[in-house]
Amino acid sequence: MTEITRDSCQDWDAGDPLAPLREEFELPEDIIYLDGNSLGPLPKGVARRLERLISHEWGRDLIKSWNQHDWISLPRRVGAKIAALIGAHGDEVVAADSTSINLFKLVAGALKMKPERSVILTEHDNFPTDIYILEGLCDLLGGAIELRFAAADEITAAIDNDVAVVVLTHVNYKTGAIHDMEGITRAAHDGGALMLWDLCHTAGAMAVDIGAAKVDLAVGCGYKFLNGGPGAPAYLYVARSLQEELRQPLTGWLGHAAPFAFDSQYRPAPGIDRNVCGTPTILSLAALDVSLDIFARADMAAVRQKSRQLGDLFVSLIDGVDAGHGLTLACPRDSGERGSQVSLRHPEGYAIMQALIDQGVIGDFRAPDILRFGLTPLYLRFVDIWDAAAILDDIMTERSWDRPEYHDRKAVT
Amino acid sequence: MTEITRDSCQDWDAGDPLAPLREEFELPEDIIYLDGNSLGPLPKGVARRLERLISHEWGRDLIKSWNQHDWISLPRRVGAKIAALIGAHGDEVVAADSTSINLFKLVAGALKMKPERSVILTEHDNFPTDIYILEGLCDLLGGAIELRFAAADEITAAIDNDVAVVVLTHVNYKTGAIHDMEGITRAAHDGGALMLWDLCHTAGAMAVDIGAAKVDLAVGCGYKFLNGGPGAPAYLYVARSLQEELRQPLTGWLGHAAPFAFDSQYRPAPGIDRNVCGTPTILSLAALDVSLDIFARADMAAVRQKSRQLGDLFVSLIDGVDAGHGLTLACPRDSGERGSQVSLRHPEGYAIMQALIDQGVIGDFRAPDILRFGLTPLYLRFVDIWDAAAILDDIMTERSWDRPEYHDRKAVT
Repeated sequence: MTEITRDSCQDWDAGDPLAPLREEFELPEDIIYLDGNSLGPLPKGVARRLERLISHEWGRDLIKSWNQHDWISLPRRVGAKIAALIGAHGDEVVAADSTSINLFKLVAGALKMKPERSVILTEHDNFPTDIYILEGLCDLLGGAIELRFAAADEITAAIDNDVAVVVLTHVNYKTGAIHDMEGITRAAHDGGALMLWDLCHTAGAMAVDIGAAKVDLAVGCGYKFLNGGPGAPAYLYVARSLQEELRQPLTGWLGHAAPFAFDSQYRPAPGIDRNVCGTPTILSLAALDVSLDIFARADMAAVRQKSRQLGDLFVSLIDGVDAGHGLTLACPRDSGERGSQVSLRHPEGYAIMQALIDQGVIGDFRAPDILRFGLTPLYLRFVDIWDAAAILDDIMTERSWDRPEYHDRKAVT
Repeated sequence: MTEITRDSCQDWDAGDPLAPLREEFELPEDIIYLDGNSLGPLPKGVARRLERLISHEWGRDLIKSWNQHDWISLPRRVGAKIAALIGAHGDEVVAADSTSINLFKLVAGALKMKPERSVILTEHDNFPTDIYILEGLCDLLGGAIELRFAAADEITAAIDNDVAVVVLTHVNYKTGAIHDMEGITRAAHDGGALMLWDLCHTAGAMAVDIGAAKVDLAVGCGYKFLNGGPGAPAYLYVARSLQEELRQPLTGWLGHAAPFAFDSQYRPAPGIDRNVCGTPTILSLAALDVSLDIFARADMAAVRQKSRQLGDLFVSLIDGVDAGHGLTLACPRDSGERGSQVSLRHPEGYAIMQALIDQGVIGDFRAPDILRFGLTPLYLRFVDIWDAAAILDDIMTERSWDRPEYHDRKAVT
């Protein structure tokens, strides 16, 4: 194998079909942003769209904008754009609320569809907020429903006749390990259960086909790989075949069959719309909408291929860095089993990440010892990975992470 | 009584202490906006704040902005500003999610606090989405909880030992009739129930003191009288004395005691924070924050006084307009019993409202026959009310509403 140099990274960038999309993002010149799996960067079109939305639509056309500028269908239009990234039909996805709330809606709806079953199956290693939401739902239902945990490799074995719904995150937020979506979904169905996938660390960076995998339900986030801005609205997916049967409990007016009739009784809207609850946050939703238009220009297979290449490059370079410095790989080495991130482990991970941030390499730290680097094919260059690894090498070699200020823990990184 | 003229309206405007605040809003010159109870107009500061938030905070400082620009406390800071408008302590209110979702949280939490009781009491005339949410909650709880309806004047009589929580909207969205917050809250407490008020048509236009009234729980909306923009985040209030006991079921990560520890089990945050669920929609929340700073310059007693005066003026003028045209008052005549709106009834209400909108008077129509005019003291002038009434007079006299195009019903008005 030829030795990798900074020049070879530059060559790869020159031949990268996704390279022009980098121009669509505002990226500060002095940083290498490897935290797009926590907060995606700003698409250049957002400022203009929001300026227009604020002054022309809200400011000038006021209430009429719900029709005139079609605010009312924005959750559906944004949903259809997300659907295209995950292998769903356009009418199977809607943007609304937060991932947590959407998870609550769909799991509660799933339990209603399986009244003879009483178990929600998940894994301890699931994204914490997902577990919290499942706990809250079980608590609300007063002991009627059991929240069962299984290890990642024992999920399918834990599916028995009591399991109503299996709830997993496709890509583990710490390790980046990918679950076998198709296999586990099939096992859930074979066991008579419904399957819900959290795509927070998937959509926008991975090529998934939830239609082909016959996934029943899914939720995901707008502000990570989708670059929709801080706290961007989330989305949910319900397979067409389940849409009429699934009744979610957060029955707000915009999920009503005739929201403007102001009927005194709830009647669910047909299709995916019943899963909307309150009035959508139009400003935040519009930012997400702008970002999704960039994805419309990207082939998701190419995105995934570059995501694997970026990861493989980083892993190769880390192998060089880790000359006795104690960094170990916390993610799968095989890019086919690894999401769009590289995770490393080190007892001083927190301080090392602070040192990296101080030198312009933005990743994040996840307790107790994980350094997490998000790989975002739309705007990252191979040379960015090279430079980030070089800076990490310096920090490890010079032990420059071992300064007091890097050990001072803040609330958010 | 001296006859009212357009000149007298101009005199009142000249002496209005709130008049300077009109300058804080972008108001199209050719319209009279009487729909601020559906979507408040644009505060001038929003465009600047959002531009900065987008380019400097999201664009430049990226993930660091959660600390550096204190995004993380924005729900609480916005909540404290709303608290000041409704007589709550700053740490009793938080901005989050939608009114519907907040209602679900608090009613579910209230039911947990009264396990020996099984009834939610409301009125048929409550805001429809509130009823839908209560229906959804009861359905989720599988028949264990009864949703009981009483007529507006029979609420207190319907509070018995089975009632866990009374859920009412303070100001009726159609008629503008005000409930006796203090009296009904006392009756709820006397009956051993908790009291929840929906303040969607109250906060920002009415002077309420929910602390003095010993209200337990409240929810409200950011995009009506608070002018926070389309689909602005909503808020919720929990009295200090109940904050440690109340456990709401939408237990997302930001309601966790240590959200960044990524613990595998949920532990509610102390105080009001446990009622936050997912990541806040920062763009939308920032717009609401800007709007609330305008309220900080207004005395709510003066706001309410002007709201009554605007209403009284409109009612007096309507009395003149209604010379056999069939318009009747659908709101209380006594401004002490009327929220910050005037509602009229006419069998051709829909067409009349379309004719008004066509001539630049924006109100809204609520089925089957209500014309609704929101009165917003921060930016409306007495002369606006005069002009609106004059245009309505013309439309009624000339029957110009009776054109085919005004009968063509659209989805939203």
